[in-house]
Amino acid sequence: MEFLKEIIQKEGKIIDNKLVKVDSFLNHQIDPNLIYKMGEEFKNHFLGKEVTKILTIEASGIPIGLTTAYEFKVPLVFAKKNKPGTMSNYYTTKVKSFTKGVEYDICVSKEFINKGDKIIVIDDFLAMGAAAFGLKDIIEQGGAELVGIGIAIEKGFQDGGRILREQGIDLKSLAIIEKFENGKVTFRD
Amino acid sequence: MEFLKEIIQKEGKIIDNKLVKVDSFLNHQIDPNLIYKMGEEFKNHFLGKEVTKILTIEASGIPIGLTTAYEFKVPLVFAKKNKPGTMSNYYTTKVKSFTKGVEYDICVSKEFINKGDKIIVIDDFLAMGAAAFGLKDIIEQGGAELVGIGIAIEKGFQDGGRILREQGIDLKSLAIIEKFENGKVTFRD
Repeated sequence: MEFLKEIIQKEGKIIDNKLVKVDSFLNHQIDPNLIYKMGEEFKNHFLGKEVTKILTIEASGIPIGLTTAYEFKVPLVFAKKNKPGTMSNYYTTKVKSFTKGVEYDICVSKEFINKGDKIIVIDDFLAMGAAAFGLKDIIEQGGAELVGIGIAIEKGFQDGGRILREQGIDLKSLAIIEKFENGKVTFRD
Repeated sequence: MEFLKEIIQKEGKIIDNKLVKVDSFLNHQIDPNLIYKMGEEFKNHFLGKEVTKILTIEASGIPIGLTTAYEFKVPLVFAKKNKPGTMSNYYTTKVKSFTKGVEYDICVSKEFINKGDKIIVIDDFLAMGAAAFGLKDIIEQGGAELVGIGIAIEKGFQDGGRILREQGIDLKSLAIIEKFENGKVTFRD
């Protein structure tokens, strides 16, 4: 997605040649026009697939999850990082954030993932794939089917994307970062 | 907003005659069609006002914040409940959740709220007004202007809405719950 790559080059702030901070348009301040276009891109990629739900994880996955769900005319479900007091019957799994160095339990109410559901997982970043594997696990616990995974920015130099593709999963990343060099981002073609 | 009131009556689950659980369409599973319509409603209400940014709080405020931001063609900023390690210069304030019985610090990077900004605050629920007052405080710390507040569901039997209106704030709630009675919701006209 050229539009996304351009905005990453222009607005992204590279930290220590290993992180790109995209909080001016993707995960703190958000450019709604970009987010709507991403929903269309994911719709185009998964066109023709039967999809009954979009699944993401709070908080940064929600905007792209929403616009993708709107395109497919299906509900969005977002996994929670803290179980609400009113939720009693849920799927849960552990997700380790390597960036933040913490592990947390995510949960999804059993009401919203059912046998027969065909689900696309959407998230803002893919690095080691921890969140993606966690959401895949929850889909499997619910007896539902993973149709594919849509990611805004994949860190191509980490293993998550490779492993998911080797498992035969239809993974669409709108921008894949190959490396950081001299304060610039190089994308995979 | 009749469409929202109907879906609350049909799908909302009343708990102990004091809470309505709306997690099948608003804050866990999300109906994107409803959320897009809410953005249009807020646009219609605040039509003609100069607006430079929409401000909300993670996680449930993000969907409606996004569609409202899209309608106004301005960025959405969402306040974070946990300060990211990469954020060093930020506004912060304490917000007490009466429903959850916890107090937390919310934060917004100083980059994204500036003097001269004209901001609409959007959130899913308004009860005692804790989140709304917190976001208003952050806007004031940034020397920006609060244009108004848009809420999906106001609990009219709690004090937040009354206090904000008495302060002369333009508060638009799409549905105001007057009371719960016999397992049904009564709305204010």
